[in-house]
Amino acid sequence: MIWNTNLRWRLPATCLLLQVAMVVLFGVFVRYDHDADPHWIDRQGGENATSDMENEFYYRYPSFQDVHVMIFVGFGFLMTFLQRYGYSSVGFNFLLAAFGIQWALLMQGWFHSYSQGYIHVGVENLINADFCVGSVCVAFGAVLGKVSPVQLLIMTLFQVTLFSVNEFILLSLLEVKDAGGSMTIHTFGAYFGLTVTWILYRPSLHQSKERQSAVYHSDLFAMIGTLFLWMYWPSFNSAVSKHGDAQHRAAINTYCSLAACVLTSVALSSALHKKGKLDMVHIQNATLAGGVAVGTAAEMMLMPYGSLIVGFLCGIISTLGFVYLTPFLESKLRIQDTCGIHNLHGMPGIIGGIVGAVTASCANASVYGAKGLANAFDFDGFKTTWDSSMQGKFQAAGLFVSLAMALVGGIIVGIILKLPFWGQPADGNCFEDSVYWEMPEELKSSVLHPEDSTLKPSEP
Amino acid sequence: MIWNTNLRWRLPATCLLLQVAMVVLFGVFVRYDHDADPHWIDRQGGENATSDMENEFYYRYPSFQDVHVMIFVGFGFLMTFLQRYGYSSVGFNFLLAAFGIQWALLMQGWFHSYSQGYIHVGVENLINADFCVGSVCVAFGAVLGKVSPVQLLIMTLFQVTLFSVNEFILLSLLEVKDAGGSMTIHTFGAYFGLTVTWILYRPSLHQSKERQSAVYHSDLFAMIGTLFLWMYWPSFNSAVSKHGDAQHRAAINTYCSLAACVLTSVALSSALHKKGKLDMVHIQNATLAGGVAVGTAAEMMLMPYGSLIVGFLCGIISTLGFVYLTPFLESKLRIQDTCGIHNLHGMPGIIGGIVGAVTASCANASVYGAKGLANAFDFDGFKTTWDSSMQGKFQAAGLFVSLAMALVGGIIVGIILKLPFWGQPADGNCFEDSVYWEMPEELKSSVLHPEDSTLKPSEP
Amino acid sequence: MIWNTNLRWRLPATCLLLQVAMVVLFGVFVRYDHDADPHWIDRQGGENATSDMENEFYYRYPSFQDVHVMIFVGFGFLMTFLQRYGYSSVGFNFLLAAFGIQWALLMQGWFHSYSQGYIHVGVENLINADFCVGSVCVAFGAVLGKVSPVQLLIMTLFQVTLFSVNEFILLSLLEVKDAGGSMTIHTFGAYFGLTVTWILYRPSLHQSKERQSAVYHSDLFAMIGTLFLWMYWPSFNSAVSKHGDAQHRAAINTYCSLAACVLTSVALSSALHKKGKLDMVHIQNATLAGGVAVGTAAEMMLMPYGSLIVGFLCGIISTLGFVYLTPFLESKLRIQDTCGIHNLHGMPGIIGGIVGAVTASCANASVYGAKGLANAFDFDGFKTTWDSSMQGKFQAAGLFVSLAMALVGGIIVGIILKLPFWGQPADGNCFEDSVYWEMPEELKSSVLHPEDSTLKPSEP
Repeated sequence: MIWNTNLRWRLPATCLLLQVAMVVLFGVFVRYDHDADPHWIDRQGGENATSDMENEFYYRYPSFQDVHVMIFVGFGFLMTFLQRYGYSSVGFNFLLAAFGIQWALLMQGWFHSYSQGYIHVGVENLINADFCVGSVCVAFGAVLGKVSPVQLLIMTLFQVTLFSVNEFILLSLLEVKDAGGSMTIHTFGAYFGLTVTWILYRPSLHQSKERQSAVYHSDLFAMIGTLFLWMYWPSFNSAVSKHGDAQHRAAINTYCSLAACVLTSVALSSALHKKGKLDMVHIQNATLAGGVAVGTAAEMMLMPYGSLIVGFLCGIISTLGFVYLTPFLESKLRIQDTCGIHNLHGMPGIIGGIVGAVTASCANASVYGAKGLANAFDFDGFKTTWDSSMQGKFQAAGLFVSLAMALVGGIIVGIILKLPFWGQPADGNCFEDSVYWEMPEELKSSVLHPEDSTLKPSEP
Repeated sequence: MIWNTNLRWRLPATCLLLQVAMVVLFGVFVRYDHDADPHWIDRQGGENATSDMENEFYYRYPSFQDVHVMIFVGFGFLMTFLQRYGYSSVGFNFLLAAFGIQWALLMQGWFHSYSQGYIHVGVENLINADFCVGSVCVAFGAVLGKVSPVQLLIMTLFQVTLFSVNEFILLSLLEVKDAGGSMTIHTFGAYFGLTVTWILYRPSLHQSKERQSAVYHSDLFAMIGTLFLWMYWPSFNSAVSKHGDAQHRAAINTYCSLAACVLTSVALSSALHKKGKLDMVHIQNATLAGGVAVGTAAEMMLMPYGSLIVGFLCGIISTLGFVYLTPFLESKLRIQDTCGIHNLHGMPGIIGGIVGAVTASCANASVYGAKGLANAFDFDGFKTTWDSSMQGKFQAAGLFVSLAMALVGGIIVGIILKLPFWGQPADGNCFEDSVYWEMPEELKSSVLHPEDSTLKPSEP
Repeated sequence: MIWNTNLRWRLPATCLLLQVAMVVLFGVFVRYDHDADPHWIDRQGGENATSDMENEFYYRYPSFQDVHVMIFVGFGFLMTFLQRYGYSSVGFNFLLAAFGIQWALLMQGWFHSYSQGYIHVGVENLINADFCVGSVCVAFGAVLGKVSPVQLLIMTLFQVTLFSVNEFILLSLLEVKDAGGSMTIHTFGAYFGLTVTWILYRPSLHQSKERQSAVYHSDLFAMIGTLFLWMYWPSFNSAVSKHGDAQHRAAINTYCSLAACVLTSVALSSALHKKGKLDMVHIQNATLAGGVAVGTAAEMMLMPYGSLIVGFLCGIISTLGFVYLTPFLESKLRIQDTCGIHNLHGMPGIIGGIVGAVTASCANASVYGAKGLANAFDFDGFKTTWDSSMQGKFQAAGLFVSLAMALVGGIIVGIILKLPFWGQPADGNCFEDSVYWEMPEELKSSVLHPEDSTLKPSEP
């Protein structure tokens, strides 16, 4: 089948249309929240004069910047491991995230920051918008190399919408705790992406097989992504936790879990190779599973050793997944998961949801203190009658809701993306930058473009 | 014409002379400011004991570090896109910035932090020194590949001096607001650099043309620079804003503007290519124009939708500039602008100045609150009688002063740099690391060195 | 001699054993400290209600993240300069640091944070654990390319232990000040690593000589490491200083010292090359010596010009070391120092210890204020009778203790690592990723593996 991958009108039209819509919607709906408004000074000078330091900006901004780096450099470079898809990995991730954060500010704003006709945005909204886009970056990993930027923008549009609905159900209706987003970001993002790639199954993808691997320097670029994700994950899991001990604890737990995860990933990577050699794919990905899996429980009293155990198990499970499960999913279930997101975000996300439910169930006043317990789980207002076991049940329910939303949403969005006019590449042109990018001289004409008679067939 | 590019005595002499001068001047003039002095504790224990948190360090240090990354990794790697000029891009940027920040601490210190015979430095001075050097990095982009490190140090010496005078005129005499430096940093830096490169016009630069482009991996290195600039720009524009809402608002506005800018840059890049393909040059540069253009107004009540509009327009203008204006400037006006700084810093800087003037003119007490308005624009002291429209006029005046300083200063400095003994490369040896760097074995002897009989002519 | 480098059982067993031990020890010993515990809220609501901002998290977390980046990206990428050892440089650094921080949390915890049967960890412990691992990363630089990951884990186990003992002697028994670790981290780490590599001397290392150099892009990857180390070093030296002016001053001094160091490194690099060309090795390494050498004194009243002088000298000494001393050490003393850590951490570390001792000796109440002096050096409790000169003497003693610990410890650990069954590579297979890593297709079979009959001899 021959596809037309010339995006000259489709991509500009999509970008400009979406961006104009953002301008209009921001004009109608978005204003600054109290801490970012010039009237903030009026409170400062009053009776209960407080320090400028109390502005929410100073509590959250350093974490925000770390999260921002994870979304753009972390996810972007993690996916540059493919030998001929570096421009697209970094560039398309940049594009979809830049659009996604705007749409997420609106969607999440309507659900969580809407009052008197306006969405009021502050630094916490920026973090949450980045979080939401994180789930799109996860899904991008499954379809990497097989979709056009137009498809990615459409997927972002729908996924951010569904993410926000799911998040609203979990956080506001089920009163679930999920600060680092094991359920809302990772489980939802991974199973959504896997469902989409399942719908978009390409039977002749083996024609692009020689490009679906790394070269030496592309693996080093990918390690930039891995390390920035790994290093800043403590900020990710603590960024929207409550001030003080919760934020502090979330960072410590994530630090511990990630450290343990590195050792077991290395151990399994070596043990599963017949000559005991390490595989960069595992080092780049499985080492991060520990961060995913403490996303829900990091702010709870998981304890440092609990974090180590979670990281320990996830390094093993994730590496096993890369070696055994990903080939199985591709050959038997027709799920072509380019980056192995099922191993890095799918299974660890589910584990994270379960760990969160169990940890919440076990919470009690002797560990948290009476005030601490009420504060940690908001056992006030209509939740006054809740106890920890109830919280645990709702946490588990949240995990199932996320999975259901991901599967149903993924099917619908997958079918939309399967329409033949979005500029997707042919099966033999996947994982190839030159389809969508002007290339440096040395690399031009290296791929077969049936639709493009000016280019020669590839001569590898 | 044959140049002697052997810097064995010129570069060491220049570096050591400048550094000795810095040591002496720091010895005579530079001391710690109040918040970095051990006597600070005396205030802490007094009647109005305040928290340690009130030390300016905690308000500004995270932003400082982000700005620091922008100057050294952001600008340094952004310029590594050239296939054979990576060492020089990163290395010379490192050198000029390391010198520039010291000289800027002195120059800006004399103008703004001088009392009782001493310059008192604290974290805000460090940020401002980095800002000042940012304008040199901008100018470096115009002359990239065509000058020697000795020329760069001399340019830095003069440009930092002129920057500080211009900044003093704007901030202290005209009482202009320019927190993110659309005028002082970007407009001044860009037009200064363009004027210098105009004076240094090289008629035979086409001899180096085959090296004035990217290879695959050099473009990925450049994306590291792009992304760190893009991600940390909210910190840049908010780093020296007033505590609290102003700093908070500046970050939000910059975030919004940059996001919009990405979509319109991508749209135009695709629309202007005959097959709809994206150009890495646009993705690397035009996506940043939105950050430049809200540099002045970010801390004002630009509103989130206002920021989106500014970013929207700048993505378009900047990409158009790369496609149409840069070739025109080179062929008709003899301005050889290696990195296209006119598109990324020049035009967006002017737009930023105008947006700032208009936004300031429109400020009123119903939007800012009475106290908020006075606080935002310092309408106290001798400015008590000012109103917003007056502020707007002075803002506009600041833009013209910056342009004038850049043009006049650029001519003078350009003439100085044109002197034939600074070790600049011949027209055929531009954009080539091996002129100034010891190269790895594989790449040696790949360039023609007329002055260097031990090397063979290039055999590409 | 033929070695068996197949790590299939040794590496997994080592990783899993160590990680299980960590889980058990954390379970028995590690708990959250007060500021990371849910009971923290009880203090907040009491009589002396304080702001959430007073949680130690907000004082230290931004600095922690900067230090974290230095350890994993800074050290990891700095060592990627070798053409065929990038996977190992980044990957093994990742592995040893992930294990090291856990073991350091325990070791340092027993010495400094132990009460009522538990180690209480908070953000400051995380920073100190990263610091401790920093000294292992330094030592790794000496043995880079010549050891197996099993050896590295064993070295980490012992070095962290010895580091913690040495640190306890210095900080708790000798009451030495060493916030940025010139003595505890750099001097100890460097001379420990040099002693180990001296014991592990490889007479036939010249067989791997063709790989012991950079290629063009590997040098650019290394610059990522250099710049993140350089930029975040002010955070490193100030991360555990006292709140307020000390932390502020440490950042300023480090900023100044590093800036000066760049200029003199460049000057010497050019002056020592017969054609005046710069050497990337010097730019990557010597520019950082200024940060090492103000590690002890940065929080003291070193004064900005004092910092410049220290940086000035260290740039010169370090570059001279690379040109003259490293070859001498290798040929005459049989010390094969892959990264030249003696020039970057060894000599500058000793200078840092001396500068610290002198600066402490000169401290007096007219410079610090009476309260400031007592606060800066903890002249209270049993140190009430101390004066500055006494402090200076103890500082000097700390330097000698660190050197002695490093030499004795290095000999013992070196002998352990010399045992023949740790999977170390043969002399002709050093600096080569393919020994321990599954390689991309294009690079397979490029190295001689006497122990591995399936691979062909190298054909360069």
